[in-house]
Amino acid sequence: MIPRYSRPEMVAIWSPETRFRIWFEIEAHAADALAEIGVIPKSAAETIWARGGEAEFDIARIGEIERETKHDVIAFLTHLAEFVGEDARFVHQGMTSSDVLDTCFSVQLVRAADILIADVDRVLAALEKRAFEHKMTPAIGRSHGIHAEPITFGLKLAGFFAEFRRCRARLVQARTEVATCAISGAVGTFANIDPRVEEHVAAKLGLEVEPVSTQVIPRDRHAAYFAMLGVVASSVERLALEVRHMQRTEVLEAEEYFSPGQKGSSAMPHKRNPVLTENLTGLARMVRSYAMPAMENVALWHERDISHSSVERMIGPDATVTLDFALSRLAGVVENLVVYPERMQGNLDLLGGLVHSQRVLLALTQKGASREDAYRLVQRNAMPVWRGEGDFLTLLQDDAEVGGFLSGEELAALFDLTYHFKHVDTIFQRVFGRS
Amino acid sequence: MIPRYSRPEMVAIWSPETRFRIWFEIEAHAADALAEIGVIPKSAAETIWARGGEAEFDIARIGEIERETKHDVIAFLTHLAEFVGEDARFVHQGMTSSDVLDTCFSVQLVRAADILIADVDRVLAALEKRAFEHKMTPAIGRSHGIHAEPITFGLKLAGFFAEFRRCRARLVQARTEVATCAISGAVGTFANIDPRVEEHVAAKLGLEVEPVSTQVIPRDRHAAYFAMLGVVASSVERLALEVRHMQRTEVLEAEEYFSPGQKGSSAMPHKRNPVLTENLTGLARMVRSYAMPAMENVALWHERDISHSSVERMIGPDATVTLDFALSRLAGVVENLVVYPERMQGNLDLLGGLVHSQRVLLALTQKGASREDAYRLVQRNAMPVWRGEGDFLTLLQDDAEVGGFLSGEELAALFDLTYHFKHVDTIFQRVFGRS
Amino acid sequence: MIPRYSRPEMVAIWSPETRFRIWFEIEAHAADALAEIGVIPKSAAETIWARGGEAEFDIARIGEIERETKHDVIAFLTHLAEFVGEDARFVHQGMTSSDVLDTCFSVQLVRAADILIADVDRVLAALEKRAFEHKMTPAIGRSHGIHAEPITFGLKLAGFFAEFRRCRARLVQARTEVATCAISGAVGTFANIDPRVEEHVAAKLGLEVEPVSTQVIPRDRHAAYFAMLGVVASSVERLALEVRHMQRTEVLEAEEYFSPGQKGSSAMPHKRNPVLTENLTGLARMVRSYAMPAMENVALWHERDISHSSVERMIGPDATVTLDFALSRLAGVVENLVVYPERMQGNLDLLGGLVHSQRVLLALTQKGASREDAYRLVQRNAMPVWRGEGDFLTLLQDDAEVGGFLSGEELAALFDLTYHFKHVDTIFQRVFGRS
Amino acid sequence: MIPRYSRPEMVAIWSPETRFRIWFEIEAHAADALAEIGVIPKSAAETIWARGGEAEFDIARIGEIERETKHDVIAFLTHLAEFVGEDARFVHQGMTSSDVLDTCFSVQLVRAADILIADVDRVLAALEKRAFEHKMTPAIGRSHGIHAEPITFGLKLAGFFAEFRRCRARLVQARTEVATCAISGAVGTFANIDPRVEEHVAAKLGLEVEPVSTQVIPRDRHAAYFAMLGVVASSVERLALEVRHMQRTEVLEAEEYFSPGQKGSSAMPHKRNPVLTENLTGLARMVRSYAMPAMENVALWHERDISHSSVERMIGPDATVTLDFALSRLAGVVENLVVYPERMQGNLDLLGGLVHSQRVLLALTQKGASREDAYRLVQRNAMPVWRGEGDFLTLLQDDAEVGGFLSGEELAALFDLTYHFKHVDTIFQRVFGRS
Repeated sequence: MIPRYSRPEMVAIWSPETRFRIWFEIEAHAADALAEIGVIPKSAAETIWARGGEAEFDIARIGEIERETKHDVIAFLTHLAEFVGEDARFVHQGMTSSDVLDTCFSVQLVRAADILIADVDRVLAALEKRAFEHKMTPAIGRSHGIHAEPITFGLKLAGFFAEFRRCRARLVQARTEVATCAISGAVGTFANIDPRVEEHVAAKLGLEVEPVSTQVIPRDRHAAYFAMLGVVASSVERLALEVRHMQRTEVLEAEEYFSPGQKGSSAMPHKRNPVLTENLTGLARMVRSYAMPAMENVALWHERDISHSSVERMIGPDATVTLDFALSRLAGVVENLVVYPERMQGNLDLLGGLVHSQRVLLALTQKGASREDAYRLVQRNAMPVWRGEGDFLTLLQDDAEVGGFLSGEELAALFDLTYHFKHVDTIFQRVFGRS
Repeated sequence: MIPRYSRPEMVAIWSPETRFRIWFEIEAHAADALAEIGVIPKSAAETIWARGGEAEFDIARIGEIERETKHDVIAFLTHLAEFVGEDARFVHQGMTSSDVLDTCFSVQLVRAADILIADVDRVLAALEKRAFEHKMTPAIGRSHGIHAEPITFGLKLAGFFAEFRRCRARLVQARTEVATCAISGAVGTFANIDPRVEEHVAAKLGLEVEPVSTQVIPRDRHAAYFAMLGVVASSVERLALEVRHMQRTEVLEAEEYFSPGQKGSSAMPHKRNPVLTENLTGLARMVRSYAMPAMENVALWHERDISHSSVERMIGPDATVTLDFALSRLAGVVENLVVYPERMQGNLDLLGGLVHSQRVLLALTQKGASREDAYRLVQRNAMPVWRGEGDFLTLLQDDAEVGGFLSGEELAALFDLTYHFKHVDTIFQRVFGRS
Repeated sequence: MIPRYSRPEMVAIWSPETRFRIWFEIEAHAADALAEIGVIPKSAAETIWARGGEAEFDIARIGEIERETKHDVIAFLTHLAEFVGEDARFVHQGMTSSDVLDTCFSVQLVRAADILIADVDRVLAALEKRAFEHKMTPAIGRSHGIHAEPITFGLKLAGFFAEFRRCRARLVQARTEVATCAISGAVGTFANIDPRVEEHVAAKLGLEVEPVSTQVIPRDRHAAYFAMLGVVASSVERLALEVRHMQRTEVLEAEEYFSPGQKGSSAMPHKRNPVLTENLTGLARMVRSYAMPAMENVALWHERDISHSSVERMIGPDATVTLDFALSRLAGVVENLVVYPERMQGNLDLLGGLVHSQRVLLALTQKGASREDAYRLVQRNAMPVWRGEGDFLTLLQDDAEVGGFLSGEELAALFDLTYHFKHVDTIFQRVFGRS
Repeated sequence: MIPRYSRPEMVAIWSPETRFRIWFEIEAHAADALAEIGVIPKSAAETIWARGGEAEFDIARIGEIERETKHDVIAFLTHLAEFVGEDARFVHQGMTSSDVLDTCFSVQLVRAADILIADVDRVLAALEKRAFEHKMTPAIGRSHGIHAEPITFGLKLAGFFAEFRRCRARLVQARTEVATCAISGAVGTFANIDPRVEEHVAAKLGLEVEPVSTQVIPRDRHAAYFAMLGVVASSVERLALEVRHMQRTEVLEAEEYFSPGQKGSSAMPHKRNPVLTENLTGLARMVRSYAMPAMENVALWHERDISHSSVERMIGPDATVTLDFALSRLAGVVENLVVYPERMQGNLDLLGGLVHSQRVLLALTQKGASREDAYRLVQRNAMPVWRGEGDFLTLLQDDAEVGGFLSGEELAALFDLTYHFKHVDTIFQRVFGRS
């Protein structure tokens, strides 16, 4: 996470201010529950809310205490006591630091997921809009980077829409994975704290109770979370790669929006480089990489060790901030993508009709040619076209053996582009529920 | 995937025999649908089923054809034609190789997921049985590898049970991710094949239709699948690590079952090494690592490139076979784990009662001591115990300042072990729905 | 490692036959040294060599014993004793299993490195040959996938040559990392075996002695080895990617060799897909991924645990066999690459001379224009060319403000292609030591 | 990279101030060379040095220009011109942005490597000191976490010393990998800049010239660099893991230094958690993870794309700052490690002499017992000891069949601890060149 690739809303989730505010809320909700079941005075809970609720925590002061005690939660509680006064002794009763830390981390990851889901929604909206805009814009479909058969640009976008809808579902799932609360004490036995406290805090924070916490919330949850972010980032990369390919000089079917003041290169002023999507490609590599340490974090020792903590202090912000930035940038790229339908048509025509070879092949077999013969006939006429020595339709029409199966008119009909688009509506219906 | 870490049922999914059989079924189901909508004669579809259905495909022969054509599906179709005869020309009509390859891969991954889910069920059954067996077996809970407070060994196992139930849900989710079918032609437009064929084949194979395939089924699905396997493997590692820790000489609270003929070491015959769980630790590293190339596979070029294929030929078997083996081995480890309750009790007593310090701390504050004073009093008496200079309870009872808050009897009551286990039932109820 | 992506010589290194033969040699060399220093009779060492040297070890028999003892080295020694007879009791004196296993693994990794180095040498030879062949073949240089300035195709290949020479050095370094021998006993203290035995075995096997082994050879060595293989694989990917880009329809400057019988696609007979380099892209992902578990293997417990073993049984063969196959395939791709210089020239001319804009920019500033003015003038004339509205040179010559700095003739001279190639010799000299 | 895990010296390398200063030096050295060969006036070069050399670059101002131009190097040059004045037009002549960016990145990575090497030197010094301090401190060697045979604690440390000396060599190698300079223009042809400029700048910055740069310095170099950092981090983890194991309650042979004010747990004041080494374990996971995106960065498109840039903006600081912090923390852990020799001896005695079983086994075979008989005899007497039913030596002395080979006195001599340490000097000599 670096400022260049960060957006403020997501960054704010990871600020000390937010963290301490969530810590306070956990402690204060816990105090309510402790008061309700008679462990601490109700007045104490009220004082905690009243004085802590309006307190402006002094980050520097907490840091100072932490440097002495080498313990962040104790530092915070000490500082909180400076606001709350005598009743501070009722704070954190029977709880352990991890009750606060882990539940807070859950809240942060849930909030982060909410932003990421909203980001994907923006990507989806842009993809849907552009997909319908280009629903019938002809383009060449490519496999292996080689021209295959006609598609429409809208179909391409519909495919990405379907993929990002899956990404959205994965983020919702990731959010569920980590949306749990643990207030269960030093080794998760509730020896010194009633389980009803956990239930209360969980409900107030919109979390589920963690069925078994062992001081910590189990880290398989977080591993699943970060792994899903890695998958989503990989989908970002796929769309970014598509744009980069479309923008390359020889293809140039679309371009990232190029703002007036922008300079593409200090040396080659004509250049418009797909720098946004190249950037997204790199960011995807980063988000993906965070899945590995998250998975290594699962196997903690016994009831817990703290090796996961340094990892999470880094990948918590790094993964969510970077993916948020990437999704937002991606949405902008799609929204503003400059599309050149005439270039798409030009590329479609590049191979002199060879892209219709599959259809010719099929027609030949349907007219009675063996698969092997049909293949041979198509290949015989395709190769000269490939070498730039003629047009595929003309060559086929001039080939007597082909003529034995298909007339010149029948052959010409096989080169009709709309033939390929007859099921675009079907696919749009599947994807968008409308066409 | 190597024989040493493989089980036959999972290996069979990835055999050429299975693959060609699935290919055949895809082609034959497609032929049915093509016949139903009048594209090919019904008799042809019947012939395909009849002759292909009883054919024993000759793997070597297919390999031979592939070496010439350098194309595996063409090689198979050529071989299939040797059985089907003239009607073979109606096979694969309007389809593309990936229709067969990708749908087959879906079937294989779904079958693999089913086995993995059954494996986890066995792990769950073993964990549940042992958890209830040791529901009230006292043990020391450890954080940072340091003794913390008492737990029961059953609680530990309940935590793993809850984790593996999440793993099960993740595998079910992974299965859903990849359970789709694509029969959509060269670039996914259904130009040469009716979408009803895809619907028919999907239904017959228990799959959903892929909303938008672009010759290939999009690889974000597979990335999510392998990522989830990586997370499950990380949970395997956590349980393996727990056993390794419990078996280490100084701890020795449990041991892997050691069969009579087994030799632990060529040099040290007394040694019983936790080789199964050490092995599982390594296998987890492997399964986890496969998530990375699976994620890199997502960003294919345009409508597809084939870079994913070599990766999948390797990680398809490698990840599923290795995880199947690991889960099965893990189930055996849990089922046969030799547990030493007396050693657990011995370790629990190791620290002369220091594990009750948190409870003493709490009691002091409840009796009116400030947090700081309580902490100081506890620390003052704990440190000599830590140095082996006395028993915690006795020292506390001899400390006049402590006596100002708590009587000797009250202090003794704080050292009651069952205090810590009063919510074991609550937790078991949460996890197992019974206690 | 799967047969499809394997070559026999590398596979043979990992066969049980090879492994047991190396084990035998380690034991027999150790026996020589033990005899030399008087620990065992010289006649015993001679018998071991004589009978073991000509023994054909029965893999199945060893497997059978291992299934009972669950210990591979004991199984081997038991089998070896069946050949050696009574003197077998002098085998493995004071040694531990890892002395045999780890030293054997070193030998295997060293042999694998030797093959990989030879593979890279073949890639280097092919690159050098093709680089000189196309030393002066003009092509467009591209940054961001966008045309930049002219290069020669030979320069591109020279860059890859330099990269693979670095890869070679990395493999040599990787070989050195793992070329050590440990014969130091159960915890590496030489308590039961004289260090001179280790020295003798090391010398005989072409290894260095491991300064401190702790039953095992430390795994940071192996991590460095596999990490270097991952880096080399990434260079394979870069060259593969270059070919894939050059072969894409709109570019088509080069193609993988396409053998007569090969069928590119079951549906589109005109297609020549870069399947070899796409395959290499996937294989690179795999080799790279093995670096992760290799690094996780480093942190073994205390003097050793055996979690690394399962990882190494898999990645030992997987990484080396796959990289060997990839390098060999890559060498073939380079050797047989079909190059289209006329297409390179065609692409170079695609932008109507815009690729000379940097040179024009520079000339303007050298003639006294400010950087900002020069940039503006170039951009003003470049944009119409970019839109397909004219030729860059003509437009510049018609621009009066430009004319204030550069005459029409001077401008024309700026479009001379050879200007860009004046340092090709310099670079070739740097890379190849000749030009 | 987060402040909590950062040290100022390494952070400074990655500050904008440092970056712009290096950029300036590259430009100014290039100007010198350009002046020397007569491309620009010598006075211009002097002015650049004079005015730029004392300029305090305004980071905010550069950021402002960059926001408009979306190009960082242009922004810097524009700002530089504000200091240099008219002669600024001679800056950056014939160069491309990457000439500055990549050469700067080389300088930063080299400086980072120098700090890391110094860090390792501190770790080495600490390890050497402690190794000699505990050269003869007896401890139990453990394989699989199970007691094996005696070692000394000094031997353990000597092993780590040897490993970190390898790490040092790897860092030196990593430094060499990236210590190159490219000043070769837009596509690396030196079309607009003389190679002598590159030579001059390289020499001034202590770098080698990059034999072939293609606008960028090839990224296999950086992949090797970050991969080596990942290997070093894995060695950090191994040492951290050793300390964590030694500090666990049941073992407690050593502890991290625990400062007086430090609070180990809010709830359990007696706890001293190995939080530093747990932290190092997590940091190692992070540094390791950065190797993956670094390897993915290698395969840039054609002469370059910019996908690597976002990755490097993150992992450049993240990997070096985190590893620097980790190595520094590790050095402190070793320097201050509190060692408990009496606990080591206690653990060594824990198994009632079983750790001598290998030696007994050997003695039996040397006295003429077959391997199988010796094994059986040792196992027969070891198993009761293992069950806590007696002392190994006594049992052996009471075993008549054993007595047939070894007298009671001979057996007792086999339990002499110093027997195991006779080669400690040999190993120290190997590692430290002294003993």
